[in-house]
Amino acid sequence: MSEFSIGIDLGGTNLRAAVVSREGQILDRHTALTSISQGRDAVIDAMVGAIRTLRDRQTGRFAGVGIGVPGFIHLEKGYIFNSNNLVPLENFPLRDEIEKRLGAPVILENDANAAALGEKWMGAGRDVRHFILLTLGTGIGGGIIHHGRVLHGEIGMAAELGHITVVPNGLPCGCGNVGCVEKHASATAIAAMGRLHGLGENITAKGVYELAVAGNDRAHMIFEHMGRSLGIAIANLVNIFNFPLHLLSGGPLPAWEFFAPYMFEEVKRRSYTFRHTDTRIEKAALGDLAGLYGAAYLPFLSQELGSR
Amino acid sequence: MSEFSIGIDLGGTNLRAAVVSREGQILDRHTALTSISQGRDAVIDAMVGAIRTLRDRQTGRFAGVGIGVPGFIHLEKGYIFNSNNLVPLENFPLRDEIEKRLGAPVILENDANAAALGEKWMGAGRDVRHFILLTLGTGIGGGIIHHGRVLHGEIGMAAELGHITVVPNGLPCGCGNVGCVEKHASATAIAAMGRLHGLGENITAKGVYELAVAGNDRAHMIFEHMGRSLGIAIANLVNIFNFPLHLLSGGPLPAWEFFAPYMFEEVKRRSYTFRHTDTRIEKAALGDLAGLYGAAYLPFLSQELGSR
Repeated sequence: MSEFSIGIDLGGTNLRAAVVSREGQILDRHTALTSISQGRDAVIDAMVGAIRTLRDRQTGRFAGVGIGVPGFIHLEKGYIFNSNNLVPLENFPLRDEIEKRLGAPVILENDANAAALGEKWMGAGRDVRHFILLTLGTGIGGGIIHHGRVLHGEIGMAAELGHITVVPNGLPCGCGNVGCVEKHASATAIAAMGRLHGLGENITAKGVYELAVAGNDRAHMIFEHMGRSLGIAIANLVNIFNFPLHLLSGGPLPAWEFFAPYMFEEVKRRSYTFRHTDTRIEKAALGDLAGLYGAAYLPFLSQELGSR
Repeated sequence: MSEFSIGIDLGGTNLRAAVVSREGQILDRHTALTSISQGRDAVIDAMVGAIRTLRDRQTGRFAGVGIGVPGFIHLEKGYIFNSNNLVPLENFPLRDEIEKRLGAPVILENDANAAALGEKWMGAGRDVRHFILLTLGTGIGGGIIHHGRVLHGEIGMAAELGHITVVPNGLPCGCGNVGCVEKHASATAIAAMGRLHGLGENITAKGVYELAVAGNDRAHMIFEHMGRSLGIAIANLVNIFNFPLHLLSGGPLPAWEFFAPYMFEEVKRRSYTFRHTDTRIEKAALGDLAGLYGAAYLPFLSQELGSR
């Protein structure tokens, strides 16, 4: 009998859900607004409703639900904490509540970890045992795949790679640190540097990219800084992990030609391991579907491992 | 029947060997000079001789030999490369050669990884699944224990934690980078800073420590810099791994009171995870026996796992 799972990517404004077969084919999809302002119950109702609708259209065996969420997950307890966008869901037994309502296994995962797992299952990480994904967006998220599984650390908070210090006296970050790589290399950081460099009060990362394409020197400088900052963080990761692959995804990726040469220059200089092994830094393959694939993979992986 | 293994800590000047029981008791020891200048065969002869002597004095079952060596190990191929102190042994099938001569299993491991494994088996890491060891000496070595095993990366080069960048435009390192934490926080770095700060042409790390005890301001500044540098690296590790424990060992540890407050200040500031979880940074327990314990544990661990 064929088997399917449902993956959910829960953001601050959208809830995306997909039915995925055991073979990794997307069979059905659903998108809804995340009515966060209406409180916790409304969001849970919307999620459970979407899952039921999608499930009832299928005929195969239902393996369960994986949910990727921004913010920290307490894996054992099955709840979210310190999620900037989903505050009403924090510190609540979200996993158990949805399991109860559905009568099916539910697994929570950090959204960047889920994206990494998606790339492992169906994307650019298929052929390696170990790799790291960095998602460049509002911040920088990270997912570490070790022996085919997410490296979670003690309670599930590992891979906060956006908070690697790359400029010890750099820009202040919401996390309390200064000089986090996400303050120097995320899409938000590119836009902020654009404003600082007088490229326009309302300039976006895309706007900085377009200026770079047009030959603007300051836009080029911004991508140089972004690439070098990213390079310091990735060099650290290569030295720490000796993994064969590092994937980048997110909005700034079209600017690869502008930032990547500086990124590689820093990684080469700062990592003996990079220079002496076959270590790749590449674009991820699944775009914004990675998180959905990874979330949907969670119930299958849990079956394989015989444990949550 | 009782069981024993032999652990070897192979340095540039000394070869230390210990017979250790399955229960972790040191039963016998042997130390010899590493006659590196006499070439590869002389070192291998000395090692095999020491192992045979120790083995023949025992009556239990011989589980095998673990050898901790400075430098990189190619795990699969079983040889050493880029070892500053053991150049004649490089790029040679060392493991297979010793196995052949002894007729017993031999496992090579990086010395800092072996020390971490020793702390896991019989030291300060006994009660946790995951932890990181930093050994402060000539450089800074690292060992990462994940689910009770050494995290090796793709070919065995992981945990080069001494080469985490903490000062992006800092002091040049032999690895090609600038601002590696080992250039700012190792025993060698403390001595070098002592010279830079005019504390004496031949000042050692111990000398800087003694001046700090005597109230010397410049010695205090040096330990502040060392502590902050270490703190940046450890904050990165906490953010990356979410491990519950980080151990420090090596010569500068007596100066804990001088550097640790600054180290903790940086880690607290730079790691949300540190501030919101029970994450410890402590002194390792086994001193310079850690590497011997860890090397001796390798054959037992390999039996448990049913694989090398």
